[in-house]
Amino acid sequence: MQTENYSSRSASRHVNAERLWARHMEMAEIGKTKKGGVSREALTVEDAAARARLVAWAMARSYGISMDAIGNLFVRREGTDHTAAPVLTGSHLDSQPRGGRFDGVYGVLAGLEALEALDDACITTRHPIEVVNWTNEEGSRFMPGCTGSQVFRDPTLLEQMLALKDAKGIALSDALEEVSRSLPKLTHRPFGSPVAAYIEAHIEQGPQLERASLPIGIVTGIQGTRHFEIEVFGQAAHAGTTPPSQRHDALLTAAQITLALEQLFLGAGDEVRFTVGRFDLIPNAKSVVPGHAFFTVDFRHPQETALRDLGDEVSAICEANRRNCRVVTRDVRRSKPIEFIGVVPDTLRSVTRRLGYGQMDIFSGAGHDARYMLDLCPTGMIFVPCEGGASHCEEENASPEDLAAGARVLVESLLELAGAADKT
Amino acid sequence: MQTENYSSRSASRHVNAERLWARHMEMAEIGKTKKGGVSREALTVEDAAARARLVAWAMARSYGISMDAIGNLFVRREGTDHTAAPVLTGSHLDSQPRGGRFDGVYGVLAGLEALEALDDACITTRHPIEVVNWTNEEGSRFMPGCTGSQVFRDPTLLEQMLALKDAKGIALSDALEEVSRSLPKLTHRPFGSPVAAYIEAHIEQGPQLERASLPIGIVTGIQGTRHFEIEVFGQAAHAGTTPPSQRHDALLTAAQITLALEQLFLGAGDEVRFTVGRFDLIPNAKSVVPGHAFFTVDFRHPQETALRDLGDEVSAICEANRRNCRVVTRDVRRSKPIEFIGVVPDTLRSVTRRLGYGQMDIFSGAGHDARYMLDLCPTGMIFVPCEGGASHCEEENASPEDLAAGARVLVESLLELAGAADKT
Repeated sequence: MQTENYSSRSASRHVNAERLWARHMEMAEIGKTKKGGVSREALTVEDAAARARLVAWAMARSYGISMDAIGNLFVRREGTDHTAAPVLTGSHLDSQPRGGRFDGVYGVLAGLEALEALDDACITTRHPIEVVNWTNEEGSRFMPGCTGSQVFRDPTLLEQMLALKDAKGIALSDALEEVSRSLPKLTHRPFGSPVAAYIEAHIEQGPQLERASLPIGIVTGIQGTRHFEIEVFGQAAHAGTTPPSQRHDALLTAAQITLALEQLFLGAGDEVRFTVGRFDLIPNAKSVVPGHAFFTVDFRHPQETALRDLGDEVSAICEANRRNCRVVTRDVRRSKPIEFIGVVPDTLRSVTRRLGYGQMDIFSGAGHDARYMLDLCPTGMIFVPCEGGASHCEEENASPEDLAAGARVLVESLLELAGAADKT
Repeated sequence: MQTENYSSRSASRHVNAERLWARHMEMAEIGKTKKGGVSREALTVEDAAARARLVAWAMARSYGISMDAIGNLFVRREGTDHTAAPVLTGSHLDSQPRGGRFDGVYGVLAGLEALEALDDACITTRHPIEVVNWTNEEGSRFMPGCTGSQVFRDPTLLEQMLALKDAKGIALSDALEEVSRSLPKLTHRPFGSPVAAYIEAHIEQGPQLERASLPIGIVTGIQGTRHFEIEVFGQAAHAGTTPPSQRHDALLTAAQITLALEQLFLGAGDEVRFTVGRFDLIPNAKSVVPGHAFFTVDFRHPQETALRDLGDEVSAICEANRRNCRVVTRDVRRSKPIEFIGVVPDTLRSVTRRLGYGQMDIFSGAGHDARYMLDLCPTGMIFVPCEGGASHCEEENASPEDLAAGARVLVESLLELAGAADKT
């Protein structure tokens, strides 16, 4: 039985929870913020320093290190079959401005921990296993995010992604060149070589695992998203002098639309994610009737039909609740839900069960690089809990035990996918 | 009959509509903004220039000019009875930042026009008539506003008002000293001398006169105000990952409270002024559930009982609609409604009727210096229409005809209150 074979090899027993935690804390020093988060946006000096740290750890183990033309960084532990495509794992070292210590970093460091656990357990695999640090997942400095994984999936995007500019007008290509110069000379990795499978480990960024007291979430997909921008045009007026009947109050209209949209979305069940996150008035002065309101709707759902049906009602609901203002609704962005099925999530599930960890299936509300890998190879993700579900904030936190549990599931799953080498 | 007496004197026929308009346009050059408004905040170089212009016009007519310790500037046309208290009229030359060309200025220039019309009609009054430019009515540079009239009413406030500081830390006393140095040497006017009556002419700052096609509004009072600040404390969370049942969405709570307050206030009739003018979210990012909302309620009403009864419900309504957030309601400012009754509004009404102008009684939504004069002497106000009711903005506009109509009512009313001198 496979179970006994792998179990006896004890790769997961060589996952070192203290080492894994210490490396998170070491990374957290790079770009550390006052409130204990990190600001380490893509291709900044902080990102360069984090990459340098990863490279140093990889060199200490004599792993192969390579970088492609968009800055994705690969750490490779060879297998016995040099013609076999690598099994890939990883995530990203960049963070949001004033982001947290675990978002992205965990997937990279858990991958490195897996390679070292295999070393320490003296296990050889048939396929090579690689750990990747994708460039600019967060998309806060250069937009769109998941830049590295998008180019990896479709290299024809390379030029346009290299040309992206940040708020200061710095091109991604120039920022990347500077980062490259700060690193040791690395092997250039061409695009287009096949990948056997991809696993991404990540903190949940939501509260479900914590509330269920389960250490492992098997990600069944990434929900789809629709973003709307809604503008309400009223008429600014003096708050003391303008009678109610003669007002065109953009705020009251915006509030009514917001609550009407809430009715629409929340009537559709607990799977819906409906957020009005930005809300700006003009002139925004206490004694002036607001003449203009702008707000955003972030709507996510695991099912494409729900995204379509509910999302398509937004504009009509805005119109029906516009009162005596004019309303413009823009359907600004849309991404379909994706599903992780097949060998990778199946492996993750069975390994988790074998290791005795509690698990649940979970949909990802946030986007991840795994979205793009799904087009290239069997793909899956695992989540570990984060404190209070807080993420993209300095308070983001996770426990050493949960991080180690995820790394144990990761190494055993990588091993299963990469295959144990024939004993010689 | 008095009517015939005054009519025959024809003070109002000597109101010069072109001169009055030309002076508004001349004043509008001082601190002129790109979009045709004015930025002439209190005790700035622009305010000093406007004061200098007023002083020059007054000197050309040999009127007496004096200034008190808070910078209120008085232009005096003598009467025959030197023991009689002056009848006072005026308003303010300072403006909001990017304010309009008529708010305040009109009351000063209409007063000056009245003095000159009396000259030109060769009419002598028993009481002296004075035109006042109150210091810092707007309160945008130094807070609180109506600084000059407040000190005039209660000179014990002088020291604390002189100590007010602007956003740059400049004391009102220092700004005033600089303005004084830029003007010709003026007579010092002590506080405490009696005033026979006060009339303030002003643009309406609302749309009622324009919509009723009436040139004159007899102000029956200034409505009372209550200002509330409401803070909603929720929990910031990832928009993609946090299920609806686990959210503490400060925006949805704030929207619900806003609409519940609207129900409360708007159910109470067309006299209510209810405005949520400021509305700020933290972090105000499209993919983050808002963790904090701050908004203001500006509630005004002509009746103290309504101010009390409706205003006292605000806190309970916030609490009843807080959902799963915490709400803090602060009752930050309160001023009682005042009523203009008696000889001044009666005179304004009868004069308007005699001159054949259409008139309506009107409550003032905005505050004015007249609020403070009411404690010292019989007081009243007239309003003239402004285009679309727009005020405190660069688009503020009024017609030469309406301004002249107001000045005609003003001069005849001043004459009636100051009394014609006995023919000698």
